[in-house]
Amino acid sequence: MDIWSYTQNGYNADDTVTNGNRFLIGNGYMGYRGTMDEWGRGEMAAVNLAGVYDQNGDQWREPVNAPNGLFAKLSVNGEELSLGKAEPSAHSQTVHFRRGTHSRDTEFAAARIQSERIVSAAEPHLLASRLTLTFKTDGRAELTTGIVTDIWDINGPHLFGHSYQTGAVLLAEARTGELDIPVAVAQAAQCGAAHDEKQEVTDTGVYRRICFDAKAGETVAVTLFSAVFTGMDGPEPGKRAAALCEQALSDGYECLVAAHEAAWEKLWQNSAVELSGCDEAARALNASLYHLHSIAPRHAGNLSIPARGLSGQTYKGAIFWDSEVFLFPVFVHTEPELAKALLRYRIETLPGALRKAAEYGFRGAFYPWESQEGGAEGCTNYNVTDVFTHRPVRTYFRDRQIHISGDIAYAFWRYYEITGDLSLMREGGAEVILQCARFYLSRAHRRVDGDDVELLDVIGPDEYHERVNNNAFTNQMAAHCMSRALALTEIFAESDPAFIDALLQKLDYKDDLARLKTVYPLLRPVFAEGEVIEQFDGYFALEDCSLETVRGRLLDEREYWGTNHGVAAHTQIIKQADVVAMTALFPALFSDETVERNWRYYEPRTEHGSSLSACMHALTACCFGRPDLAWEHFIKSASIDLAGGGKHWAGEIYIGGTHPAANGGAWMIAVLGFAGLSVRDGEITASPRLPPQITSLRFPVTVRGKRYRITVTHDGWSREEG
Amino acid sequence: MDIWSYTQNGYNADDTVTNGNRFLIGNGYMGYRGTMDEWGRGEMAAVNLAGVYDQNGDQWREPVNAPNGLFAKLSVNGEELSLGKAEPSAHSQTVHFRRGTHSRDTEFAAARIQSERIVSAAEPHLLASRLTLTFKTDGRAELTTGIVTDIWDINGPHLFGHSYQTGAVLLAEARTGELDIPVAVAQAAQCGAAHDEKQEVTDTGVYRRICFDAKAGETVAVTLFSAVFTGMDGPEPGKRAAALCEQALSDGYECLVAAHEAAWEKLWQNSAVELSGCDEAARALNASLYHLHSIAPRHAGNLSIPARGLSGQTYKGAIFWDSEVFLFPVFVHTEPELAKALLRYRIETLPGALRKAAEYGFRGAFYPWESQEGGAEGCTNYNVTDVFTHRPVRTYFRDRQIHISGDIAYAFWRYYEITGDLSLMREGGAEVILQCARFYLSRAHRRVDGDDVELLDVIGPDEYHERVNNNAFTNQMAAHCMSRALALTEIFAESDPAFIDALLQKLDYKDDLARLKTVYPLLRPVFAEGEVIEQFDGYFALEDCSLETVRGRLLDEREYWGTNHGVAAHTQIIKQADVVAMTALFPALFSDETVERNWRYYEPRTEHGSSLSACMHALTACCFGRPDLAWEHFIKSASIDLAGGGKHWAGEIYIGGTHPAANGGAWMIAVLGFAGLSVRDGEITASPRLPPQITSLRFPVTVRGKRYRITVTHDGWSREEG
Repeated sequence: MDIWSYTQNGYNADDTVTNGNRFLIGNGYMGYRGTMDEWGRGEMAAVNLAGVYDQNGDQWREPVNAPNGLFAKLSVNGEELSLGKAEPSAHSQTVHFRRGTHSRDTEFAAARIQSERIVSAAEPHLLASRLTLTFKTDGRAELTTGIVTDIWDINGPHLFGHSYQTGAVLLAEARTGELDIPVAVAQAAQCGAAHDEKQEVTDTGVYRRICFDAKAGETVAVTLFSAVFTGMDGPEPGKRAAALCEQALSDGYECLVAAHEAAWEKLWQNSAVELSGCDEAARALNASLYHLHSIAPRHAGNLSIPARGLSGQTYKGAIFWDSEVFLFPVFVHTEPELAKALLRYRIETLPGALRKAAEYGFRGAFYPWESQEGGAEGCTNYNVTDVFTHRPVRTYFRDRQIHISGDIAYAFWRYYEITGDLSLMREGGAEVILQCARFYLSRAHRRVDGDDVELLDVIGPDEYHERVNNNAFTNQMAAHCMSRALALTEIFAESDPAFIDALLQKLDYKDDLARLKTVYPLLRPVFAEGEVIEQFDGYFALEDCSLETVRGRLLDEREYWGTNHGVAAHTQIIKQADVVAMTALFPALFSDETVERNWRYYEPRTEHGSSLSACMHALTACCFGRPDLAWEHFIKSASIDLAGGGKHWAGEIYIGGTHPAANGGAWMIAVLGFAGLSVRDGEITASPRLPPQITSLRFPVTVRGKRYRITVTHDGWSREEG
Repeated sequence: MDIWSYTQNGYNADDTVTNGNRFLIGNGYMGYRGTMDEWGRGEMAAVNLAGVYDQNGDQWREPVNAPNGLFAKLSVNGEELSLGKAEPSAHSQTVHFRRGTHSRDTEFAAARIQSERIVSAAEPHLLASRLTLTFKTDGRAELTTGIVTDIWDINGPHLFGHSYQTGAVLLAEARTGELDIPVAVAQAAQCGAAHDEKQEVTDTGVYRRICFDAKAGETVAVTLFSAVFTGMDGPEPGKRAAALCEQALSDGYECLVAAHEAAWEKLWQNSAVELSGCDEAARALNASLYHLHSIAPRHAGNLSIPARGLSGQTYKGAIFWDSEVFLFPVFVHTEPELAKALLRYRIETLPGALRKAAEYGFRGAFYPWESQEGGAEGCTNYNVTDVFTHRPVRTYFRDRQIHISGDIAYAFWRYYEITGDLSLMREGGAEVILQCARFYLSRAHRRVDGDDVELLDVIGPDEYHERVNNNAFTNQMAAHCMSRALALTEIFAESDPAFIDALLQKLDYKDDLARLKTVYPLLRPVFAEGEVIEQFDGYFALEDCSLETVRGRLLDEREYWGTNHGVAAHTQIIKQADVVAMTALFPALFSDETVERNWRYYEPRTEHGSSLSACMHALTACCFGRPDLAWEHFIKSASIDLAGGGKHWAGEIYIGGTHPAANGGAWMIAVLGFAGLSVRDGEITASPRLPPQITSLRFPVTVRGKRYRITVTHDGWSREEG
């Protein structure tokens, strides 16, 4: 087994959507779905852009898909050789994790089509593909290529006022509907055979028809270069796209691929986890890191990663808590500058979080549940469609899932804890933490006749139980956030009093600082050693039935389990780790015994309906010394996109795509769970808890500018520099 | 038109259920549905008992229906003369409001069946009927009569272990399933013709078959007496029932009827409203008071009135806020001892309210939303069945409709205001108010960073909007309750310091008293003069669309409009008066202009989906001098049971029956609205605001032991004693 690639043999139309995710390539600026060169909107071909959003009418706001400049369709003697139309005698599709390339190899009766495709890891705006066409009969070949503007959208269209240029470099330009952002795609082509080329503009794009006489046994290579720029990248995106294509033509495909592969190799040097003992797991872990690298916005320095990566418009291309809780850990340990960039996105979108808090009558920063550019809240009040009435269902993710602000503050604090670097706090991180703490102050209540502080009417990570009081996870996140605000002011009071004084004054924070001191210790619940922690007030009084019982009550498999009408809502069955996630994120607060008791209580009650769930259960199982219980969760997390698993529907809404949080979770389980890696004050330690399936783990960690390689076996661990 | 009776001519099987309610007779101890003598469970014949509850399995707890001792079915020459089986040539059914009797008159080919039926207003346990059978052909007549134990139940059966006695007096005894309460029904019969009688016990009851030879033109009278006793009435209910039947036999039907009619006449002397100018309205108002008198528990002194009276098991036979807000006003003005008895029910069930508060983690008294005997909460967490999935829907009436405690305190205070009588406060009323105020203290929250006091996560009277914050009606009721607790302690501190000191000490109330003083003035919202009051936080931000728009979204006419999935839940369409009800109940707080502005805002947004709504809109329209706008609401309220209106379904659950609250509302509109009656410190005043349809109103009021007759015309009003 090649642990550095994944190949699927044969063609099955049912896999079209899943393969689009499974074989995705990308570079953080854009993602190109794992579709065939000749496919279009019907097969959900898409060039998904990071950070460019558009809202059409009152539909959901979502990221924009760019026109597809790598489209290529071959006909021989008038017969179209397209997968899904002509029957192939053989077909395979491969994604190469180490090199970051996609390839296909399809044999039709008249010709064999091979292609390799990259989204350049060296040049964010560049895509390229090389088609290798081997003919089996003599005849007239016609390759239609160009820039397709008739593209797949979930809540589109988003591009309007298309204009085109023909010539050596084709150019398609359009503007988004809502914000009038220009989007430009250029394309250049090289054909290795003598040919005629005609160009035409139709209502679906701008095309070249490359025609030549083919002979049986002959192989012709065609290389396509495409460049994408938008108004977010600066002025004159059309010119820049055309210029980049001309540059690529002049550099040549081999040169571009070399730069691309070198960039990938560097990423792997910093992050690859060598897992020995189980090739299946090793490959799945490679696939997970591959997907993370493909979507990490290295080009920007102030973007974060959407919940479905760059695999499409699912979840509105928005940034969720996934970024801070499930993606940030990989990067803060392997590529701290990128981790910093992810958090910088939260600094830059603080104004949006302040606006959202004010919208609900609160002070401080209430971060969007689904954050789009500038911190706009992408989450609507109706996030699910009822399968019985086809009506939108009022969900409370937007207004009540307040742990998001604490999750973000948690990541800022972790960044400081691991790197020892206060520069991000100075850049705005301190302000973020103070404003998040202020939000919780403002959101908290006291009973008129009691002292306890409560957070009422919230949703925790387990979204199947809406509008609950004193969710344990949420309260702990809030308490942590408030206590970190205080800790931070103390740290700066010693190291840089001028900075913190100025900040507190700017924020008019003196009174809040005093309040924080009295309030956060009173936030319920108080955890009792060795006890099962109630997920929220009244949880234990809910119907205590099995997952199978609840599943058996479904009348439609696409039914949403949550909201007031859902089958899980009034039972103890939960969507995902909630209390367990809390014990995973705050290990110092809980004894191993408490962690285990809670794990054993909540695990059978967890549907794992979210791809975020498995990771937390696995991490905690390692905590209490049972990595064997973590193994299944590890495999599930790491394999999620290879297996094509995960939920595809929430009510009637398509939620498919890749699963970056599960990818990040897989790394967390391997490195933080099995190896037990811990970094504190620049010191690295490990506490190996390898499951029997793994003989050793070897991985790099970057701490305070130095790269270390850690080796973990059943017998112990070691560390070397370099 | 006879304004003292209502007759329906002709037979239509579709009216069976409605007529059961429309033609109901009762005496507070029991109600007998307006069904034919020969009908049974299929036609929903029922002898519904007040205050006797039973729960079968995990079905809803509901009042018990007694076996039917007035069953009588005639056959002539083997042909059964039963309505719905044989075709009548003529048929009419009448309820006599003044006399409290039900009669029917049905002509079949072979015989004419007339009957008159009473549930004695003089003797709570006694029922009687007289059948007058006129034969049109010669032949063998067989009258089957007896006690039918195969009875209609919604969530039954409730009676088990039946035993029977035959003899001159038939006896059927059984026991309830849950609490093992004995229920006994006796029957005696007199037949005016020479006859044979055979008795038999079957699995549906104990019967006599009275057979005689009939001749064309001959009339035979048969009189039936039935008595009902239960274990709630004392020991040996069987013996007592048999004895009462024997006594009735000996007294004779005419004597019983005379006592019954005299009792009714006395009720009318105390309460009848002579409405001149519109006979339709006069009759509807008579019908309304008739229904109230039929179900008022005068026999008990410590029972209240269920929301559907004694018309069946709908709403579990439970006591709602209807009793204090819609029924109490009639009685406190016309029959204060009965008003006192209704409130005594709340004193006796205070322990249940304390238990319920504790169950939810609060102090004080949280009265049941649906109160059964001993203050048991009859309301479940699932009060509606979804029409699409047939699943029970989690509703929040039980746990969040907290205005109930304030409504009860409000009635206690009104009793004191109108009667000047503090004895009820001493009997326990003061304790009720203090415990209700304590509940609100305990239920209230403050923001950690603010001073406002809030009542969060509640439902107001408008049940289409669940789990809202700071419902205006609820907050005002709570503030009133808390301020009355303080006022009461001050009153007693002057008049009887020993009593109040002892009570405060017994309740350990000193700290709460101090808290009340600071808390109640901070309860939001503060009402701004002349402004539309927001029903709850965020109401104005909800979709503002028309009632027709919302109705147009229904996919099934039986859909429930509330809960998170309902068509009204996320719009400004409300079920019933909420802010308007508040302005009606606290007229002193609002200028006429404010009342009118709120009326004009909320009226078009009100579905009037509850029979409680019209009354509040009519009262307030009178307030701002527009009785013409009240007229339609008055007619709707007063006619509700004659018209057979009101909702019959909530989701998939039958909620039909009579509408005591609307009956009480009709009286309130006439007397408190149109006549503008007001009693304060023993002084009566009126502010006539007669609509054009009414020329005058004349009605009695009893104040401080004296009866007055008030006459109101368009020109003024006058008062006379007696």
